Amino acid sequence: MINVGIVGGTGYTGVELLRLLLGHPEVRITVVTSRSDAGQRIEEVYPNLRGRIDLTFVAPSSEALAGCDVVFFATPHGTAMHMAPELLARGVKVIDLSADFRLKDPELWTSWYHLPHACPELLAEAVYGLPEIHRAALREARLIACPGCYPTAVQLGWWPLLAESWIDPAYLIADVKSGVSGAGRKAELPILMSETGESFKAYAASGHRHAPEIHQGLAQMVGQDVGLTFVPHLTPMIRGIHATLYAKIIAPDCDLASAHRLYQRYYHGEPFVKVLPLGAHPDTRNVRGSNDCHIALHQPAADTLIVLAVIDNLVKGASGQAIQAMNLAYALPETLGLDHAAVYP
Amino acid sequence: MINVGIVGGTGYTGVELLRLLLGHPEVRITVVTSRSDAGQRIEEVYPNLRGRIDLTFVAPSSEALAGCDVVFFATPHGTAMHMAPELLARGVKVIDLSADFRLKDPELWTSWYHLPHACPELLAEAVYGLPEIHRAALREARLIACPGCYPTAVQLGWWPLLAESWIDPAYLIADVKSGVSGAGRKAELPILMSETGESFKAYAASGHRHAPEIHQGLAQMVGQDVGLTFVPHLTPMIRGIHATLYAKIIAPDCDLASAHRLYQRYYHGEPFVKVLPLGAHPDTRNVRGSNDCHIALHQPAADTLIVLAVIDNLVKGASGQAIQAMNLAYALPETLGLDHAAVYP
Amino acid sequence: MINVGIVGGTGYTGVELLRLLLGHPEVRITVVTSRSDAGQRIEEVYPNLRGRIDLTFVAPSSEALAGCDVVFFATPHGTAMHMAPELLARGVKVIDLSADFRLKDPELWTSWYHLPHACPELLAEAVYGLPEIHRAALREARLIACPGCYPTAVQLGWWPLLAESWIDPAYLIADVKSGVSGAGRKAELPILMSETGESFKAYAASGHRHAPEIHQGLAQMVGQDVGLTFVPHLTPMIRGIHATLYAKIIAPDCDLASAHRLYQRYYHGEPFVKVLPLGAHPDTRNVRGSNDCHIALHQPAADTLIVLAVIDNLVKGASGQAIQAMNLAYALPETLGLDHAAVYP
Amino acid sequence: MINVGIVGGTGYTGVELLRLLLGHPEVRITVVTSRSDAGQRIEEVYPNLRGRIDLTFVAPSSEALAGCDVVFFATPHGTAMHMAPELLARGVKVIDLSADFRLKDPELWTSWYHLPHACPELLAEAVYGLPEIHRAALREARLIACPGCYPTAVQLGWWPLLAESWIDPAYLIADVKSGVSGAGRKAELPILMSETGESFKAYAASGHRHAPEIHQGLAQMVGQDVGLTFVPHLTPMIRGIHATLYAKIIAPDCDLASAHRLYQRYYHGEPFVKVLPLGAHPDTRNVRGSNDCHIALHQPAADTLIVLAVIDNLVKGASGQAIQAMNLAYALPETLGLDHAAVYP
Repeated sequence: MINVGIVGGTGYTGVELLRLLLGHPEVRITVVTSRSDAGQRIEEVYPNLRGRIDLTFVAPSSEALAGCDVVFFATPHGTAMHMAPELLARGVKVIDLSADFRLKDPELWTSWYHLPHACPELLAEAVYGLPEIHRAALREARLIACPGCYPTAVQLGWWPLLAESWIDPAYLIADVKSGVSGAGRKAELPILMSETGESFKAYAASGHRHAPEIHQGLAQMVGQDVGLTFVPHLTPMIRGIHATLYAKIIAPDCDLASAHRLYQRYYHGEPFVKVLPLGAHPDTRNVRGSNDCHIALHQPAADTLIVLAVIDNLVKGASGQAIQAMNLAYALPETLGLDHAAVYP
Repeated sequence: MINVGIVGGTGYTGVELLRLLLGHPEVRITVVTSRSDAGQRIEEVYPNLRGRIDLTFVAPSSEALAGCDVVFFATPHGTAMHMAPELLARGVKVIDLSADFRLKDPELWTSWYHLPHACPELLAEAVYGLPEIHRAALREARLIACPGCYPTAVQLGWWPLLAESWIDPAYLIADVKSGVSGAGRKAELPILMSETGESFKAYAASGHRHAPEIHQGLAQMVGQDVGLTFVPHLTPMIRGIHATLYAKIIAPDCDLASAHRLYQRYYHGEPFVKVLPLGAHPDTRNVRGSNDCHIALHQPAADTLIVLAVIDNLVKGASGQAIQAMNLAYALPETLGLDHAAVYP
Repeated sequence: MINVGIVGGTGYTGVELLRLLLGHPEVRITVVTSRSDAGQRIEEVYPNLRGRIDLTFVAPSSEALAGCDVVFFATPHGTAMHMAPELLARGVKVIDLSADFRLKDPELWTSWYHLPHACPELLAEAVYGLPEIHRAALREARLIACPGCYPTAVQLGWWPLLAESWIDPAYLIADVKSGVSGAGRKAELPILMSETGESFKAYAASGHRHAPEIHQGLAQMVGQDVGLTFVPHLTPMIRGIHATLYAKIIAPDCDLASAHRLYQRYYHGEPFVKVLPLGAHPDTRNVRGSNDCHIALHQPAADTLIVLAVIDNLVKGASGQAIQAMNLAYALPETLGLDHAAVYP
Repeated sequence: MINVGIVGGTGYTGVELLRLLLGHPEVRITVVTSRSDAGQRIEEVYPNLRGRIDLTFVAPSSEALAGCDVVFFATPHGTAMHMAPELLARGVKVIDLSADFRLKDPELWTSWYHLPHACPELLAEAVYGLPEIHRAALREARLIACPGCYPTAVQLGWWPLLAESWIDPAYLIADVKSGVSGAGRKAELPILMSETGESFKAYAASGHRHAPEIHQGLAQMVGQDVGLTFVPHLTPMIRGIHATLYAKIIAPDCDLASAHRLYQRYYHGEPFVKVLPLGAHPDTRNVRGSNDCHIALHQPAADTLIVLAVIDNLVKGASGQAIQAMNLAYALPETLGLDHAAVYP
């Protein structure tokens, strides 16, 4: 059994880790920290777990966590980078769901997060937790930087086309829509139901923190710099991300049929990424609550290829993918604890 | 392994049976019928199951189903009663999620469903599939009549108080609210999102088909006739039932504290029914996607006791409870395949 | 033209007053106060008013408001009672949408709001702003206490039956459901979309602040004390209140047909209260954005009468009704500025 | 007073015409037709109009409509083109909300709608009902082709930039999201609340019927052919359209500030189109129920300009714009009957 600690258990990615790990046969949850809810029983704060977990939130500390085999950080940025070095030194694996270890360049990180990075020396070691692309490295990882929700959908969506240089990397447009749980569990006016229900909007259209992460990942795929326009939107639902990805075809042999075969080949055998039949459109409801990613391709004109990719932002976009990475790091079957079908309707 | 057949696989309770049974370690799904979708691959009709089931819908027939150990009917009323006798005769267990075997009185059944009953001789044998109340009988059952979603919430909510005669059976008021998936997967105007979204209404306030079923169950608990007012409502969400149950206290020792202890005693050890702490209010989101039932008690005045009970209408109110009954009928652990926490948020 | 001031312009009832008063031909909005948004242009805070209002929020003060003919308080409880006396003394009419002047008994008020009342001497004068019942008094009023949203629906729903003593006043049950805008525009976790979307719950089932107000109103109708159980619920939509009202018939001649005629008589000529045909169920969407109240009657058993009443909590349950009262107080046509059909779908 | 007839009064654009025209001071609604609901009182079919309209649906016929001054067609495509010639011949103005007269090329029309056009000779005369661009022609029009909802948002969004040739017309990407009321009031499975609620998807990504209409409009603006990629999406809300428009800058002087000034100049004095301040993002809730269009600009990179444009699909995207066109055709104030602020929240 793997002894697991969770730092920041009172956000949505924290409670989602709990939901999923409670069904994982090789995991024992031993410590769950929360600054705000320390002392409260977890099942009182999260009644969906009532009768399923007999633990109390504790205040975060290295001592409390040192006995764990692996610690998940389900915290806002700026926390994991302060605690990771000591945990790693004590032999604890660290899986960070926040942004602290996603960017390789600490100055770029600072320019977006407005903090000096606390342990830039670890950035090179951190393995980016996108199993479909970094599976081998994850098997050896002791520090895993889980991708953001938007970056997961966009990178899985474009990977085959960029890796094969079939589309123009200089003009990539990612129009991405997220449910409101992506904004977190914070008492803020703009995410009240009366404000976001029955309404749709773009935000951060001039620049969003996930843009450099996506940019870094796409550039690695294609082996050169890319030109990316990324606009996130808030859609009136709780869970789900839908990426609509627009690119220009540059490879002479690329058409809808060949691109579809390419995706089937790249994702063949992947347990969670499903390439839909030609003509289909993915729907976020069909991945809700699951670790699945559904991808479809469309070609509205000879020179244009559209990729549609959907995930559940809290599962494949956060906690599920983190567990998938943990399974790899512990040489467990990759789908262990994650093989639920989406809850539909 | 239990070979399972599902009749009527294209409604919401059908696809929910599939979602849950795919995770059940002792079940092999062998036949899924659908009149409308025969010939189509299940994963094409239900993309949430993509990559998880390699079966095609077939037209319903006794031949196709005779090789099963157990057949679930996820059909509208009027189908199971025509096929059950032959299946039972062939040694197949029948678990009916429709209304065909819920009422013991065939004339009462006909008065609500406007059809003659096709096999009234089986009504006495059919075991009412509410495990918390009929567990022993379910262990011996070969024909199980699964309760309706409203009746499940109402009966679990009032059982201890009525069984102990602590409340007045002559004036029971059940104000119950359901998500729209309870109305089924039918192309009908009133359940369009533009009609039901952002809106709330009562329906069938003068009399609903679930009323006689609830009435029958409550009368059995208390051992005498009851006076029940039941009003169902449609609430703008997909899954969930919330029952608000009003009754007058008649037992001299009944107060909030003693009633709370009574519920803790009745539901002690129950794997799915959770009695909330005093002061709490259950929330349908905390049972969404799970087989849980959460119950809370409130006493706004000396002579009045309010019970609040929530379930997911498609799980504890239908497919999950049906599997719970199957587990009992096959002497399996009652929670097998059902032990998921609710999907929150 | 009536010069109008609004105190507390940044809550939902405040912005709804602005929306409605901007279309009122006899009103000029002269001052809108907001402690939190003072100095900001109204159209920046409320983009739905962009291009429609050329005013800036100011900090609340008696000086700023003294030049108005009438001041609306769209504030939480505890504000209007401090400012009303001076405004009244300066000859300004006061229309309070908060709870400060609703209860006639200052001790009862204090027991629910945990504050001493600042001007108990005004409670007797304050006219309860339910035009259908207090129309004559409103024509003479200089201090109007607008009813709460729940109390509006419940009182309009039961008025004819109680005024005629056709139902038993000792055992009244009001099960009422509200959209989340009723909880106000406050940065609080429980009203985030991720918390309230797709979920339904009761709250304050042991006692809610609107209960004494409803109790006072019902007792006045029937001329004696009443026994009321009132349970509010939160339903996953933004606007709308649905009251389901249960009562026992005590008048020998009361049945569904006679009760329906009674309601048609009581509400004959009322511009906003519509009695639906027998058999109908009101739907909150059909009053959304309008000042309408729809009422229907059902009789599920010989001794039981159910009233269903729906309003928009922000219009007939707050700002619209306040303007209706203002129209009466200024001898204007009662529907002026309020005669919009509901926005459907 | 203008005597108005409405053909197809039982769809969402039909009932929205009724809602808006009932508040129009220069209009008398004289005939409302409905094939399916003929003989029913309008207020029974649409309870939001209860007490506001004393008319009964009649079957559609030229005789019934010949007495009108103007007839609105709120029908699916293929109806108006059969009835318009006779009505025009009798001197009745025709305002068609369907697609019948939007495309100038009848062969193109046939290729998308799979019907021969019944009166191609009228296509040249039909005035495209986008008042901001075709105001002068609308003043003289007797046959008006109202734009589709998607085309309205996209064309208003791009008009200044294309008319000035500031962006590259060869590579325009319109990612547009719509509420489900855009799919109409039809009993179809995919638009049930259980199917579309809490879910997001693209549809018709390979080609949608509104694409040629948008293409025609954009090409007229720029005076040459354009390369357009248009992907519509279904978002889980009832009303609202949000267009996210991506284009490459080609004019040397175009940057965010100059583009913002350009939009302010083009839309100066427009009663319904509002250009938001720099940095703002429009939100569909802020135009819900109103005829407003909100537009914002963002420049995420030196060569890229993003336009965000929102409308209510049933008002500015259909019935409101149709009335705006009627006002122009009758030399009435353009905002008559349309000057409501959006319903927020």
